Amino acid sequence: MKALVPIADDSPFPLENLPWGAFTRPGESRIRLGVALGDWVVDLAWLAQHGLLPTQQLPGDYFLHQESLNDFLGRGPDVWREVRMLLTHLLSDAGPDAVRASLVPRGEVTMRLPMRIGDYTDFYSSREHATNVGTLMRGPENALSSNWLHLPIAYHGRSSSIVLSGTDVRRPWGQIAADVFAPSRRLDYELELGCVIGPGNVLGTPIAAADASQHIFGFVLVNDWSARDHQKWEYQPLGPFLSKNFATSISPWIVPLEALQPFRVAGPVQAPEPLPYLRTKEPWNFDLHLEVSLQTATSRQRLSLGNAKYLYWNICQQIAHHTVGGCNLQPGDLLASGTISGPEREMLGCLLERTRGGAEPIALADGTTRTFLEDGDVVTMTGWCTGSGVRIGFGEVTGRVLAACREPGRPVD
Amino acid sequence: MKALVPIADDSPFPLENLPWGAFTRPGESRIRLGVALGDWVVDLAWLAQHGLLPTQQLPGDYFLHQESLNDFLGRGPDVWREVRMLLTHLLSDAGPDAVRASLVPRGEVTMRLPMRIGDYTDFYSSREHATNVGTLMRGPENALSSNWLHLPIAYHGRSSSIVLSGTDVRRPWGQIAADVFAPSRRLDYELELGCVIGPGNVLGTPIAAADASQHIFGFVLVNDWSARDHQKWEYQPLGPFLSKNFATSISPWIVPLEALQPFRVAGPVQAPEPLPYLRTKEPWNFDLHLEVSLQTATSRQRLSLGNAKYLYWNICQQIAHHTVGGCNLQPGDLLASGTISGPEREMLGCLLERTRGGAEPIALADGTTRTFLEDGDVVTMTGWCTGSGVRIGFGEVTGRVLAACREPGRPVD
Repeated sequence: MKALVPIADDSPFPLENLPWGAFTRPGESRIRLGVALGDWVVDLAWLAQHGLLPTQQLPGDYFLHQESLNDFLGRGPDVWREVRMLLTHLLSDAGPDAVRASLVPRGEVTMRLPMRIGDYTDFYSSREHATNVGTLMRGPENALSSNWLHLPIAYHGRSSSIVLSGTDVRRPWGQIAADVFAPSRRLDYELELGCVIGPGNVLGTPIAAADASQHIFGFVLVNDWSARDHQKWEYQPLGPFLSKNFATSISPWIVPLEALQPFRVAGPVQAPEPLPYLRTKEPWNFDLHLEVSLQTATSRQRLSLGNAKYLYWNICQQIAHHTVGGCNLQPGDLLASGTISGPEREMLGCLLERTRGGAEPIALADGTTRTFLEDGDVVTMTGWCTGSGVRIGFGEVTGRVLAACREPGRPVD
Repeated sequence: MKALVPIADDSPFPLENLPWGAFTRPGESRIRLGVALGDWVVDLAWLAQHGLLPTQQLPGDYFLHQESLNDFLGRGPDVWREVRMLLTHLLSDAGPDAVRASLVPRGEVTMRLPMRIGDYTDFYSSREHATNVGTLMRGPENALSSNWLHLPIAYHGRSSSIVLSGTDVRRPWGQIAADVFAPSRRLDYELELGCVIGPGNVLGTPIAAADASQHIFGFVLVNDWSARDHQKWEYQPLGPFLSKNFATSISPWIVPLEALQPFRVAGPVQAPEPLPYLRTKEPWNFDLHLEVSLQTATSRQRLSLGNAKYLYWNICQQIAHHTVGGCNLQPGDLLASGTISGPEREMLGCLLERTRGGAEPIALADGTTRTFLEDGDVVTMTGWCTGSGVRIGFGEVTGRVLAACREPGRPVD
């Protein structure tokens, strides 16, 4: 099926993708929902206003009144599927001509956070990452904690400081040791995949692994910025806190699970076999290529080239585990995968691993080196699935590192 | 000053308190804001509707349109003070007679969560508690982690599962060891004080310790239910997760900081002296008596008798630390103190400490014993400040333990 506008072969957003986002038109403050198509954003409020979104399961003017995706997320797969089918028809070359007036050039809109994120959970589901970090922290004998192969380790993150791609990130102050209070000297990125939750569950009622996919709306890319020196000092015994909560960046377009279905693959063999509540019969990893690049004042180069298929614990296992004690998920919650590393050196998803704790600097094209991020560095992550002539892309999540304040709380002059 | 209705000497809610809450009237679903006065709830929507809340800083009909406290929390101390002064006058015996019609018997209303809690942070600020738990987990030599005396340790909790006092709490399933998946056998309570945040800060702009009190609206009691066996297995290396996120209970009435001002006292001596960003000149502990009681099928008795004044890190230090790296707080955020224990055995704020990890059962009045909570047990926490003939009470936070499901996700028959 062809789209109603020309779409470049390497565009992340063909008709088969239709990722969801929130945006404002130039000169407007009102937030609208949209889907991306090639170089365009489809304005769903405009379509609704002109009677072009007549679905069975939603009022005709539904998208005129939505300023975030939360309500839509809560409605579940049947509603999502109906709207997706309708949009696929409308945006194809078989759709009505009037639809063209709903297109806004993507370069002219301002993207906004697509949903209110009630709770943000960060998993730790890459075996390679956990092994590498554990080796640096505790030595090779104790690299993986004794529980790691038995459950998807996770911690609660900070919702309020989740920012959209493009937001600058200020280097945080914090404690590095008992007498050392300073801006982080080991500022790092973490390459992650984030799952956006659809319908939630009632407190006290777990989601079975077999039902978990019904609660998945889609995915974004996540950069879980980390201050490694602050983290090392603070993380015992209750986990990371300030070293993570100064900023977490997400890509603006939520790629729906529906668009990723053709790219589902089996994950790594799990041995020991997980407990029954963590068993999934179907393949729930994604063959999703991932890249991290670094732009400095004088160079731009790729730092990582990974793939989400290496994750040990899959999203259905994560959801089943998260809720097995009764914890309730809510529409718009974000479940991030944890840093995605793979078996090869170039597949490592953060600088801590890439530079072996700072011991092996990376040579950059401009003749300088990096162990951790410097002020002015721009980190950009991107990802896509390809196959059968289709490319389902995520766009990118990017952010620039700003110099720390002179003193905490005082703006830089 | 006398109130317009008789108030018992031992009431937690005299005219000097006026704690804030949200409620519904019998037979209504609409949520209203109110303050408690003796055995009554003052319906602020009614007062606003009848033109009895004419403030300088808010529209006259403001409280007609608020279904949670969040907007009011964001307005800050000047607005809070004006409304408090007006309410104190209106509810005194010098106020207009018409005000009486705004009173609803407290026993007839249904309390609701007073605010939307965007993020919930749980500190670990009692030295006695951290020492006792650390001793049980790691032995007396390594009881306090090396960072503990240098910063207020905390972790991000789960917002979605914060429930109001009176909500039953179902015993959670979870992993106890590699091959053991079972309902928690070591279910515990934790006695905590929770701070409700007023105005937030902009991401990247810390709150100085000296300014922190401007961001405090008030306090509630918190029971941070904990599954100790699940916790022990899961907490390395990223902290507690399922062992805490199945439920956290709070008391329904937020006692304003203004009412607690007369009860501020100095905390424990801090040695080593904290870093400059953590220094507070004024006393920021509260002389707040705390009690935990346990009701079983056949007995009711007190388990703990503590005081919030023993907390090592105070609320202004917690706020300064939380934001020093740039993390933004938002109106309605909840910052809990961590379990409050004191130097004496009866001052220990959880069963893990009271029974030394289950080794020393507590004898109950009915001849049975407890190490951890059993199904049907009701835990109730209460607290009050007294002095100069005034008693500022918190009411209570209570919850009953329900039996675990037969299998996770299946209701009990």
